[in-house]
Amino acid sequence: MSLFLEVVSVSEAVETVRRIAPLPGCEEVPLEDALHRVLARDVRADIDIPGFDRSTVDGYAVAAAETTGASEAIPAMLQCQGRVGMGTADAGVVSRGTCLYVPTGGALPGGADAVVMIEHTEQIGDDVLIHRPVAPGENVVFRGEDFGAGRVILERGRVLSPREIGVAAAVGADRVGVAKMPKIGIVSTGNELVPVVETPGPGEVRDANSYLAGAFVTERGCHPVYFGIVRDERAVLKRAIASALDRCDAVLVSGGSSKDDRDNTAAVIAELGKVLIHGIALAPGKPTIIGTARGKPVIGLPGHPASAFVVLVAVVDHLLAAMRQTAVSWRTIPARLTQNIPSARGREDYVRVSLSGGEATPVFGKSGLLNTLVQSEGLVRVPASSEGFEVGEEVEVILW
Amino acid sequence: MSLFLEVVSVSEAVETVRRIAPLPGCEEVPLEDALHRVLARDVRADIDIPGFDRSTVDGYAVAAAETTGASEAIPAMLQCQGRVGMGTADAGVVSRGTCLYVPTGGALPGGADAVVMIEHTEQIGDDVLIHRPVAPGENVVFRGEDFGAGRVILERGRVLSPREIGVAAAVGADRVGVAKMPKIGIVSTGNELVPVVETPGPGEVRDANSYLAGAFVTERGCHPVYFGIVRDERAVLKRAIASALDRCDAVLVSGGSSKDDRDNTAAVIAELGKVLIHGIALAPGKPTIIGTARGKPVIGLPGHPASAFVVLVAVVDHLLAAMRQTAVSWRTIPARLTQNIPSARGREDYVRVSLSGGEATPVFGKSGLLNTLVQSEGLVRVPASSEGFEVGEEVEVILW
Repeated sequence: MSLFLEVVSVSEAVETVRRIAPLPGCEEVPLEDALHRVLARDVRADIDIPGFDRSTVDGYAVAAAETTGASEAIPAMLQCQGRVGMGTADAGVVSRGTCLYVPTGGALPGGADAVVMIEHTEQIGDDVLIHRPVAPGENVVFRGEDFGAGRVILERGRVLSPREIGVAAAVGADRVGVAKMPKIGIVSTGNELVPVVETPGPGEVRDANSYLAGAFVTERGCHPVYFGIVRDERAVLKRAIASALDRCDAVLVSGGSSKDDRDNTAAVIAELGKVLIHGIALAPGKPTIIGTARGKPVIGLPGHPASAFVVLVAVVDHLLAAMRQTAVSWRTIPARLTQNIPSARGREDYVRVSLSGGEATPVFGKSGLLNTLVQSEGLVRVPASSEGFEVGEEVEVILW
Repeated sequence: MSLFLEVVSVSEAVETVRRIAPLPGCEEVPLEDALHRVLARDVRADIDIPGFDRSTVDGYAVAAAETTGASEAIPAMLQCQGRVGMGTADAGVVSRGTCLYVPTGGALPGGADAVVMIEHTEQIGDDVLIHRPVAPGENVVFRGEDFGAGRVILERGRVLSPREIGVAAAVGADRVGVAKMPKIGIVSTGNELVPVVETPGPGEVRDANSYLAGAFVTERGCHPVYFGIVRDERAVLKRAIASALDRCDAVLVSGGSSKDDRDNTAAVIAELGKVLIHGIALAPGKPTIIGTARGKPVIGLPGHPASAFVVLVAVVDHLLAAMRQTAVSWRTIPARLTQNIPSARGREDYVRVSLSGGEATPVFGKSGLLNTLVQSEGLVRVPASSEGFEVGEEVEVILW
């Protein structure tokens, strides 16, 4: 067994996880439970939206031609015949020399083709003085102008934000077809690990990775299924991973991924299936394992949470997005570097940075420190083709 | 009753909602359920993290002084006395002329003060050739270097991302004190409204706002409580708002907020409590109402979803953040305008924009159109002091 990992590029690792991502299928859910889910079927307008010509202001429905030339000095005068009720089928008719009051959202009466805002009018008894002319169509949304019946309003693959939920409601989609939430098994291995509720003894640390990975996959719209801490013994680890494969669509195993003869994760994945990648040109995160077993992805994450998190962002995010049949949605912002970031060509580096007033300051520090995770606002990715960035350069910061 | 609203500035509206925001108190939740919750109590390290001097690499634990001058040509030679097991209390001792193998995360043995990476060594039988010198402390994290016992690790007010969840786990916070999730009552009023499952008749539209507002408050970490569609009749609306006040920490009423004698929301709030603001210098969103009743905020949103959403972003977001005892977390990115955005001084405009390659294109269109909600990626805020932005100007886009 070689001491050195045969590393592949981050892009090859990403391609691999996308290729092996299983699709958990789709399901129908009530719209009110669909926030942040991924549409598996297009949403179409069932009817014209709006279903009738509609006022966008409070004002008087008129035939626009009757307001031609109206001004403060010489207003047009129309007789108000009453008001259009909200939600009524019969909006009435505006005949020559008359108008009807219509509230915002009310239906345009027959004979009217525009609405004069109430701010530009004055009502004296039944007479309404119009101080400004309106053009035909002014302050009106016509039937079907927003969405025509049958048109695709939201395409499959779209993540449902509150805005999409609101629009889906408007077109009658009280239930929507969405990608099923992938179930992600989470296993931590390492003889040094103790549960979070325990106080670690000498040589022991708490299992932070189960929580970190669980929260990460939850944030990405997946269900974490926790399999706890497993001793770093081949038979025990194999049972745990097999059990996670039974119940989940993919499995994340943290710890046991270093190139060390006592590290068992790769060996167990090879027994259950196939190791595709062991080692990525990524810092931190080099000893990552990517494999499959029973047609499901099994990813070995580094044991240290700070390294594991970079692998979650750089690689696992792509797996989860592919399983959800959508794209990763990193939010990035440009910032100017306050210090050089040196890097080795051929390796993709992810450097934690803190942000302040458009400037990004690298948070260097020993790779084994957790505090960098909460003292930074994002990651700067240094591509493998680059030897780093110089102070003053503008870089993209992946917000996390 | 005046036809015109007495408008206040957006900043006054924001100040007002912050002032009237009730604090729903705090509760303790299991860490695995705390994602995106707001810390109500500081999280401290219960013990030194790490609890022992720890290797950050796979390699050989040494006394650094014994590697002085080591090189490829003239390596230092040390006798390997065995290996440090993971999680064991007794890491052994490195005596003069010897070393111990230690895996990543393993405890540093007594007598050692550094670790040589395995890549820089060669083992021949029991002898280890060291090809590079190490400095004291190299590849080691010392006890308490990450977090000292008793130190505040995460301050109250912080929103728990996956990284914070992981770090909280490492310091033993299996339960955390978080702000209670505010319960937000959602009432839609308007005689034109029909439930989403129904097909609107002439003059009718579906109640999109309940879904839009419900998803919005959910995304901001609050519980929506739906009170359905209420006819625009004073007694009925009053009963609905009173019932929402009984069960919730704040109430959002959409519709019935225009300055129209048939619009009842302001009148009902005045009967139940007090109207503080009716009208904001905001477009769209001018006819917004801000009031209190029984010590709880009651906000009247415009009836049209596209306008209501701008009010949710510009005003209600601040109310929800204040109730959660945290700050609003708008994500903004800079972009260059492809067109002029004209605006009236004295009014804060929120213009929807689509984004592409660092450029923002205003999505103009009639205010009554829903499609702008899903055909834009964010909002450009034009402050009240500005008459707009010119093509080519760099603006901040609020991503939504």
